[in-house]
Amino acid sequence: MNSSIKISIVSGGAGFIGTNLIQKLLIENRHVVILDSMIRGSKKNLEFFNIADNPNVTVLICDCSDPLQIECASERILELGVPDELWHLAANSDIPAGVENPAVDLKDTFMTTFHLLNLMKNCNIDILHFASSSAIYGDHGDNVLAENTGPYLPISNYGAMKLASEALISSAFESFLKKANIFRFPNVVGIPATHGVILDFINKLKVNNTRLDVLGDGSQMKSYLHVSDLLEAMFLVRSLDFFGKAQVLNVGPIDSGVTVSWIAKKVVEHISPKAEIFYGSGNKGWVGDVPKFSYSTDLIQSYGWKPKLSSQESIILAIQEIDYALNASS
Amino acid sequence: MNSSIKISIVSGGAGFIGTNLIQKLLIENRHVVILDSMIRGSKKNLEFFNIADNPNVTVLICDCSDPLQIECASERILELGVPDELWHLAANSDIPAGVENPAVDLKDTFMTTFHLLNLMKNCNIDILHFASSSAIYGDHGDNVLAENTGPYLPISNYGAMKLASEALISSAFESFLKKANIFRFPNVVGIPATHGVILDFINKLKVNNTRLDVLGDGSQMKSYLHVSDLLEAMFLVRSLDFFGKAQVLNVGPIDSGVTVSWIAKKVVEHISPKAEIFYGSGNKGWVGDVPKFSYSTDLIQSYGWKPKLSSQESIILAIQEIDYALNASS
Repeated sequence: MNSSIKISIVSGGAGFIGTNLIQKLLIENRHVVILDSMIRGSKKNLEFFNIADNPNVTVLICDCSDPLQIECASERILELGVPDELWHLAANSDIPAGVENPAVDLKDTFMTTFHLLNLMKNCNIDILHFASSSAIYGDHGDNVLAENTGPYLPISNYGAMKLASEALISSAFESFLKKANIFRFPNVVGIPATHGVILDFINKLKVNNTRLDVLGDGSQMKSYLHVSDLLEAMFLVRSLDFFGKAQVLNVGPIDSGVTVSWIAKKVVEHISPKAEIFYGSGNKGWVGDVPKFSYSTDLIQSYGWKPKLSSQESIILAIQEIDYALNASS
Repeated sequence: MNSSIKISIVSGGAGFIGTNLIQKLLIENRHVVILDSMIRGSKKNLEFFNIADNPNVTVLICDCSDPLQIECASERILELGVPDELWHLAANSDIPAGVENPAVDLKDTFMTTFHLLNLMKNCNIDILHFASSSAIYGDHGDNVLAENTGPYLPISNYGAMKLASEALISSAFESFLKKANIFRFPNVVGIPATHGVILDFINKLKVNNTRLDVLGDGSQMKSYLHVSDLLEAMFLVRSLDFFGKAQVLNVGPIDSGVTVSWIAKKVVEHISPKAEIFYGSGNKGWVGDVPKFSYSTDLIQSYGWKPKLSSQESIILAIQEIDYALNASS
């Protein structure tokens, strides 16, 4: 390998956002090392963007919550050279599973952070970009959530272990990191879709194209960002210099979002216009789900970022993309 | 055991604050189960207040970060009856040790919380009182720290793992806890002293009564609460009903605190008036130490609590207590 080539590590690189991120890193002529347990991430996702066969990509199958596997990965990485940054996207993405069993988020959402920070220390990597979540805030009712809106009282173990990760990163910044960007993600849509409401609805309609059953009463409102806008935000922040503290940034759409019933209607329109929609009751999908929140993105906007797509436009584009991808792969 | 007697569990019950707490619980005619690894806690602390021999006390030597030991403890506890509350005070108290090695706070400050929540779920205990810390805030310069002052960016692994514990407790509240009081402790002084600046200074003077070497330039200012005031705050909040969320409360003195040099002078006055004080440089004692902060206790004051002693009075009382206790035990 050319020793002047820059190396990025992406944990969870075989997941939805990871594969999109890696595409952008490869355009910069970087070498990308993927660390992924391939439990939720998959070779299929990597093949989706032809990442697996790219000579500038090294795929290390590694459960980042396991110190021994992290040690092996460190050795392999140092054979390639010294990476200058790590993107930490590895996490449990099944929030209800983590509510059911706290050990899931402990292991996949938090211990990955713990051991990846060890890897960074051992490999002298001092720039970290971290995928945190709006779930760290918990339910603040109608309050607008800015980065400094406390107290942070997450209502899912997923949110709790993302907050725990933020805390550990902040402490590592004081100790050895030079740069730590903590991005609080909203709901992100796009392809390759691995989970989420759109994929769920489309899959239901593929099984039965006459009816769509929706969890809850459909009034639950959330904002959605397209993965392309998310990546532009992260790359912008990555290009800025921050000093003195870990940098915490909300990333999300400017609008207040769309309801589940609106999404259901759009999916039905696109996939199976004659299907009837049936709603349950209550405005919470599951324990740990925040029913509604509005998100301030003033801080990242002050750096010059704005999403190109609204929540509505992001959802409509994602419906088309996911449907197209499902048809192409079937 | 009388089946009508109420049972409290105290993790870290053989430590400084734990032993003081247990005294108060015993006055309520409760049975107290102590869970303590006896690594930082000690039988000496228990003997200090004659707790060890009290028939209303059951001491279980248990490392609360170890799921097997927690399982054994659960069985023993359920033989006694069903406790109605757990006070979680177990933690690493050596902040520099945790900065040096993140595994220390991971295990002793965070995994204790994780497994104690499991114990609570398994034993149907739904009231939790948790010793969090002002260290969760990190360094906010001259800003006054209220409970909702974000972003929380701890600069020590101790602060990080206390915040991680808060997050997990908040999530557990959504899932099965009925009451969760999260107390953010300031620096607390009193006896039996196990660590801290006063004990450190007194011990130094016992070795050499002519000089006292102080880490840093002595300008570092902190507020101190006497353990008696802390316990009154916690017992007041415990008597209140809260619903809907985990309750987060700063507890601390109303004044802005005292400097390290003031403490050094008072210790010298009391212990060895002719000793000379020598200062180092810098206003941070060690990595992860927040040099100065002011703390809002408006919320707990609104419930009718006020500390009886100021930071100055707390320090002076603690110097007398610690000196007396050291002389009594030597």
